[in-house]
Amino acid sequence: MKKGMIKVSGFYPNGDNNTFDMDYYLNKHIPMVAGLLGDAVKGATVEKGLVGGTPDAPAAYSAIGNLYFDSIEAFEKSFGANADAIMADVPNFTNSEPVLQISEVMI
Amino acid sequence: MKKGMIKVSGFYPNGDNNTFDMDYYLNKHIPMVAGLLGDAVKGATVEKGLVGGTPDAPAAYSAIGNLYFDSIEAFEKSFGANADAIMADVPNFTNSEPVLQISEVMI
Repeated sequence: MKKGMIKVSGFYPNGDNNTFDMDYYLNKHIPMVAGLLGDAVKGATVEKGLVGGTPDAPAAYSAIGNLYFDSIEAFEKSFGANADAIMADVPNFTNSEPVLQISEVMI
Repeated sequence: MKKGMIKVSGFYPNGDNNTFDMDYYLNKHIPMVAGLLGDAVKGATVEKGLVGGTPDAPAAYSAIGNLYFDSIEAFEKSFGANADAIMADVPNFTNSEPVLQISEVMI
């Protein structure tokens, strides 16, 4: 992804009582979101947390999902109209509250 | 980056008293780390946090830096020998304690 692009990230906290269905997320949620947002989405990445900063520390996040857009306007325009449908799907794959963040790609 | 690769992320918490020198991070720290780790590093990305999940919420992280490796072994082998030098440079660009996580690339 290029410098200046917008990266919208969902961080799903790890924790003893937190669930996360990676299969549903990869095969249902991300395709659904990509379908709803259409051409505004320039890329999607997903990672699974393995460990924290030391081998015996748990990962802070069990999963992180990222969508890339050309601009904040492109994100807002495409996401705004679909936010309710997207957020309504979250309980289908996790019982945790994602941390959401909009970032700018530097490199 | 391909499925199965290892992504090592540093999340730098945002906060009223937290500082982060993006210029130093991009132009000194990342090149230094890439130089120390050499061919083991398959890619590096950096993003700057803009806002949180709502337009009036601050970003959880003022910056996030990511390095990609082919395997955990490749990361451990290259990072282990250089960990002290890398961590010693952190106070040169931030007063915050980064959250570190090792993840597996799913898509």
